[in-house]
Amino acid sequence: MQKRHSEWKTKGKRVAPSARVAQSGQGVTVLPMMEKIFGIHSVRAIFLTRPHAIRRIIILAGQEPYLEDLIELARRAKIKPEILPLDKFLRIANFTEEERRQKHQGIYIFAEPRTIYSENDLDTLRDARVILALDQVSNPQNLAAILRNAAFFGVDAVLLLKNRSASLTPEVVRIAVGGAEYVRIFEVINLARSLDKLKTLGFWVYGLDERGEKTLAETDFGDQTVLVVGAEGEGLRHRTREFCDALVRIPGGRPGLGSLNVGVATAVAVAELFR
Amino acid sequence: MQKRHSEWKTKGKRVAPSARVAQSGQGVTVLPMMEKIFGIHSVRAIFLTRPHAIRRIIILAGQEPYLEDLIELARRAKIKPEILPLDKFLRIANFTEEERRQKHQGIYIFAEPRTIYSENDLDTLRDARVILALDQVSNPQNLAAILRNAAFFGVDAVLLLKNRSASLTPEVVRIAVGGAEYVRIFEVINLARSLDKLKTLGFWVYGLDERGEKTLAETDFGDQTVLVVGAEGEGLRHRTREFCDALVRIPGGRPGLGSLNVGVATAVAVAELFR
Repeated sequence: MQKRHSEWKTKGKRVAPSARVAQSGQGVTVLPMMEKIFGIHSVRAIFLTRPHAIRRIIILAGQEPYLEDLIELARRAKIKPEILPLDKFLRIANFTEEERRQKHQGIYIFAEPRTIYSENDLDTLRDARVILALDQVSNPQNLAAILRNAAFFGVDAVLLLKNRSASLTPEVVRIAVGGAEYVRIFEVINLARSLDKLKTLGFWVYGLDERGEKTLAETDFGDQTVLVVGAEGEGLRHRTREFCDALVRIPGGRPGLGSLNVGVATAVAVAELFR
Repeated sequence: MQKRHSEWKTKGKRVAPSARVAQSGQGVTVLPMMEKIFGIHSVRAIFLTRPHAIRRIIILAGQEPYLEDLIELARRAKIKPEILPLDKFLRIANFTEEERRQKHQGIYIFAEPRTIYSENDLDTLRDARVILALDQVSNPQNLAAILRNAAFFGVDAVLLLKNRSASLTPEVVRIAVGGAEYVRIFEVINLARSLDKLKTLGFWVYGLDERGEKTLAETDFGDQTVLVVGAEGEGLRHRTREFCDALVRIPGGRPGLGSLNVGVATAVAVAELFR
């Protein structure tokens, strides 16, 4: 770790590399690039879950009084915060246009990138209790909300469709206010194949769909559950529905108001699983 | 109705008046100003719930193919859509800066303003089953989400704190995608006094608060329930908590991730009430 840290620092680059998602489908992939995490809650979550991954902590000069607890966490992790004026703070961050619109709240860190798991790692979920599988959830805000809610209730893992879903950008991590640190994230190529794999591990697969025959409360969920949720407006794809053991619905709706936002629907369903 | 419509049209003003909230605390207040509603779902909800209130329907030229069902609803309501080029479409709308950032989706209507109820009208909730009371929810997006979720599940009414809460602007109505049409909205001056009044009508008052002794599932809710939710981050005010018969909590949370977004928390709690 220390060696790697030094190598990275001696590059002397001021423009920090941003996070990249795993490129390989083979096993656990850890990339050498640093991940940038900003926003108070998200930074705190990294200190609480993987402090040893943190390489730099950058603080906007003048914001120290509002960030005392994080400065203390940095001290304990033996990392000296770099307190910088706004121009340097922004230059090193190298924010994208989208990130610029987000609130950095005067702090960001660079950390070893988080582990993103692949289809080949599904075996490691053998003892998990609740897994969420997202069928083409493409809105980053919805993904962030789902991660936050999943973490709150204690979901073990979230499966994302590689290349056809919002991915885990620094913005998503920030909006998830720490949620991205508490669930294991899998990027899978083929959702149907992944669901089949999880069935062989003993999971029951439920699709959240307004066409479901039974409501959440009417359903006896097994000990190990995969909950599949689809894109807002479109719901689950036909092929995905066929791979579900059952479809379940949230009772409700009014004319012209037939569904909940996908993040809200997921929270309601997950709350039922952890009821 | 027709007379009023004519009067309004003969003013010949191109800048349309926007919605205003009720000024009086005396009984039901209907203001003479028109309410502007934009976005496909919100406009559809008005056609479905109070078509007779609609005075004008304005459509952006070229968008007709995407708005066929609304044009049909307008035909049935005997209102001729005004199909206008972009410059006129925008000029008549007189969008605020905030509304400009929202998606109008090529359509808006002017309607008689919705009825906003006051503390003096609480008696009319005698037969209601579930009422939401919002203790200083100031974020318009959260208010919109709460209205959408409340409408989906079938909440009868939502109480807002007058002057200390987000109010029912056209943006809120749009983001609620129709939700604002299905719940009765009360603006109250004094929340504690309103809760007391509802208690005399037979309601039990539950505060949603992470300090609650029992979880939602552990709580036996009465036949008539008021659920009080507080501002994100701050929760219920001390005085509001004292007026609750009990505090209930949503089980969950991780270090640094102690709460859900207030809209999500409200949806989870309301789902339990309609379980």
